[in-house]
Amino acid sequence: MGPAQRSGTLRSRTGYVAPACTRSVDHGSHLFSEAGKGGLLTTIRLWTDEEVSANPRVKAVFDDIRLTRNSEFINNFWRALANDPDALERTWAAIRQIMIAPGALDPLTKELIYIAVSAAHSCSYCVHSHTAAARAKGMTPAQHAELVAIIALASQTNALATALQIPVDPEFEAGTIPR
Amino acid sequence: MGPAQRSGTLRSRTGYVAPACTRSVDHGSHLFSEAGKGGLLTTIRLWTDEEVSANPRVKAVFDDIRLTRNSEFINNFWRALANDPDALERTWAAIRQIMIAPGALDPLTKELIYIAVSAAHSCSYCVHSHTAAARAKGMTPAQHAELVAIIALASQTNALATALQIPVDPEFEAGTIPR
Amino acid sequence: MGPAQRSGTLRSRTGYVAPACTRSVDHGSHLFSEAGKGGLLTTIRLWTDEEVSANPRVKAVFDDIRLTRNSEFINNFWRALANDPDALERTWAAIRQIMIAPGALDPLTKELIYIAVSAAHSCSYCVHSHTAAARAKGMTPAQHAELVAIIALASQTNALATALQIPVDPEFEAGTIPR
Amino acid sequence: MGPAQRSGTLRSRTGYVAPACTRSVDHGSHLFSEAGKGGLLTTIRLWTDEEVSANPRVKAVFDDIRLTRNSEFINNFWRALANDPDALERTWAAIRQIMIAPGALDPLTKELIYIAVSAAHSCSYCVHSHTAAARAKGMTPAQHAELVAIIALASQTNALATALQIPVDPEFEAGTIPR
Amino acid sequence: MGPAQRSGTLRSRTGYVAPACTRSVDHGSHLFSEAGKGGLLTTIRLWTDEEVSANPRVKAVFDDIRLTRNSEFINNFWRALANDPDALERTWAAIRQIMIAPGALDPLTKELIYIAVSAAHSCSYCVHSHTAAARAKGMTPAQHAELVAIIALASQTNALATALQIPVDPEFEAGTIPR
Amino acid sequence: MGPAQRSGTLRSRTGYVAPACTRSVDHGSHLFSEAGKGGLLTTIRLWTDEEVSANPRVKAVFDDIRLTRNSEFINNFWRALANDPDALERTWAAIRQIMIAPGALDPLTKELIYIAVSAAHSCSYCVHSHTAAARAKGMTPAQHAELVAIIALASQTNALATALQIPVDPEFEAGTIPR
Repeated sequence: MGPAQRSGTLRSRTGYVAPACTRSVDHGSHLFSEAGKGGLLTTIRLWTDEEVSANPRVKAVFDDIRLTRNSEFINNFWRALANDPDALERTWAAIRQIMIAPGALDPLTKELIYIAVSAAHSCSYCVHSHTAAARAKGMTPAQHAELVAIIALASQTNALATALQIPVDPEFEAGTIPR
Repeated sequence: MGPAQRSGTLRSRTGYVAPACTRSVDHGSHLFSEAGKGGLLTTIRLWTDEEVSANPRVKAVFDDIRLTRNSEFINNFWRALANDPDALERTWAAIRQIMIAPGALDPLTKELIYIAVSAAHSCSYCVHSHTAAARAKGMTPAQHAELVAIIALASQTNALATALQIPVDPEFEAGTIPR
Repeated sequence: MGPAQRSGTLRSRTGYVAPACTRSVDHGSHLFSEAGKGGLLTTIRLWTDEEVSANPRVKAVFDDIRLTRNSEFINNFWRALANDPDALERTWAAIRQIMIAPGALDPLTKELIYIAVSAAHSCSYCVHSHTAAARAKGMTPAQHAELVAIIALASQTNALATALQIPVDPEFEAGTIPR
Repeated sequence: MGPAQRSGTLRSRTGYVAPACTRSVDHGSHLFSEAGKGGLLTTIRLWTDEEVSANPRVKAVFDDIRLTRNSEFINNFWRALANDPDALERTWAAIRQIMIAPGALDPLTKELIYIAVSAAHSCSYCVHSHTAAARAKGMTPAQHAELVAIIALASQTNALATALQIPVDPEFEAGTIPR
Repeated sequence: MGPAQRSGTLRSRTGYVAPACTRSVDHGSHLFSEAGKGGLLTTIRLWTDEEVSANPRVKAVFDDIRLTRNSEFINNFWRALANDPDALERTWAAIRQIMIAPGALDPLTKELIYIAVSAAHSCSYCVHSHTAAARAKGMTPAQHAELVAIIALASQTNALATALQIPVDPEFEAGTIPR
Repeated sequence: MGPAQRSGTLRSRTGYVAPACTRSVDHGSHLFSEAGKGGLLTTIRLWTDEEVSANPRVKAVFDDIRLTRNSEFINNFWRALANDPDALERTWAAIRQIMIAPGALDPLTKELIYIAVSAAHSCSYCVHSHTAAARAKGMTPAQHAELVAIIALASQTNALATALQIPVDPEFEAGTIPR
């Protein structure tokens, strides 16, 4: 039975006067109070701690995240990835290697770059989570203001270069020849 | 000494009558004949087989790519990633796990999805490489035509939904509640 | 009189303690109960079944959608397009021709490609509607997990190729010469 | 102390049954009623009129916006930019120069172009604000329908040209040679 | 036999000293002189007038394009779409209906909107073709400068709204309630 | 007379065997040798030093760029913007204020953020120019490798969050309440 049938009954409940918010909190709690179980407003199930505990591979990653971050909190991103243990392990391993392991860039600079990419990709979740992470790593309001100003400036000059189809200067190409 | 100085001398050679193509083949061979070494027109050095052979970690990945693909050919993507062995190993491992290991989707379907994402991201390199890969995996002209038609149709309806800011139907949300 | 005046009065009602959600369900129902008419939280009016019935061209398309999908449910996308009968007819005709008519790709594969493009375009509406459609067409959790993994992998390698400006291999170009 | 700790306590309050909407109106008012202060659901503080009045540089820009628009209403965009007076002054000056000063394009055409770019960038805030602005400047439903149709058509043909990597015709290049 | 084998032989001819430009004119003519047939550097075959003449459906569209534009010139976009007569007919019909038929927006305004979307999508082909089309329709340098300035300004404020996740003002939502 | 006529004559010269590269160096020099003047392969004229010297407003900005950068080299971006002195002055002023004036972020960090945004926007020109600028400011190969790895990682997790439509955690929202 496809969503259409389900939605048919749902529609008789809700009609069109209260269309759902993209994340539809109301509709979610409505279904919750009605269905007696949580309405997770996403395209995939977010795992609860209970479900995590029942899956050794997922539990191992969650335990490492909690240990590494020294916090009990696990955000929705990981609870969604838990549906695919391979993706969960692969993604956490990449974050450990790139964002957490000591490297040539400091942790805050890495978060600023992460925010810049997330904003350019219009990823609401990632802008929120990494702005919070950057603040937790000490980003000051002045640094945030400069980050946002650079993101806006780059977006503007990117648009100018693209709208005018400006040819790359040979000098920039030459600048990348290995010596 | 910054690129400006170098470019200054370069400019006295070239001036503005022959601006570089983004990938500037001419400029590259020009520099090549001039500098006696390859001008790889990218922002990073593409490793030659000789350089690869001298680096065990990089050689191990290249050997596995050749073995897995049953071909001596290694495309520029890997020759660029060779500059960062961690990224090279991480990326090849992900491709092995997601694209090569048997799964719930057949290899050609995976390539079609890859092309769709690459086109939506306007990644010229990836559209070219994965269209070639899909053909190598048996994509027919009819399948390619349908793939491109779906990419165009989705781009069109994505634009309609975004330009009109159409609210997500509660029915779609309801469809994702865990049971 | 522009929105400013209206909003001025609205603001005295709401102030800043409860800014609207992007789809602002609350604000919508608030306006509804207050204004005695539906607050459709979008940039355009979503047509009700009553309005559809009064417009022969729109009704003809809605009837065909219901018949083709064998469901009474019509999602918001079509209720928004109803404002432009030309766009409504043109878009439904394209979907019939590309997504519904039998072709070289099976219906589920077509939906997976559609989801991939919609995700790459950050189209929340389309990701939700086509994920629901793919599930209705039999997409398994394992297939969904692989689809999402490929979307993420392609996004990653697209970014690598673009950030490094890797030149397309002549081999891929050669691969497209007509025979 | 990072957000994790705070969120830990928060989670014991909220659990997973009511995940936040991206703009989380409910959660905001919940925190509000609970914390006795406004929960501004964004990554940055939106300035109130009281705060604006206390900052001469910000007040000067807000006064000019009100005077120029002949309206008391100041939308959230400016209340967010107020956190960075340089960005506030720079952005308003650019809007004055490009969108408000008389030029070669009429005010409504400028808004239509603005909406087109905002939709292509998937910027929900900007699509909403500039569609409202275009309506305030007299955009008719027929003009809006055509605008949206062009945005969708261009998105479709952009996708076709990119997915097929169609080479630019020499004729288009030739058309831009200075004489 | 996959592209790898073909490329293997190609590589022994070309090596890595002259990587292909994305559109690789040189490599193309090189292959041409070498292979004795045209190397069309795209992922798909561009139809010649001779091939078009041999296909009634394609010829009918090309004839209508030439008649409608009052020019013998047919750009590569159509020569690529010719591979899929359905897409060719569907796309030309949409362009006729949206861009050519008289409507609420004048032809030049339509082209300006088209350029704006194409630039935002980073579609080099479409920026070139529609800038040429806009000039052919009378776009003045001053109008082009304003168009580009608006594209850059919108890109900048889109980035600010997204990077700061600014909540949509209820006033803009209210502005869209049907009357 | 539109481009079609011009292109008609051009086509008799070139035919379809050597389609132009997007930046078409060859075609440019071909036209150059043929027309006896520079073929600037862009949608707009790039100003020569002679033309700049004849325009006081443009000359003033170019002089300041040379003085500020302590280099005679002026890249194509500015030579294209010269066509719109307002845009030239506005853009250079913003770069002076955001990228050059001392601030809360160091110059190299600013360039890394700029590259990240430019890569996410698929702006070939900006990736090339700012990677060269970052190198001129001391970016090491290790820092470049980390930057690119973060850009790729963020692109991957952005795609995961968007494809799964993961709801933002209330904790991240809470983290932004003003105190």
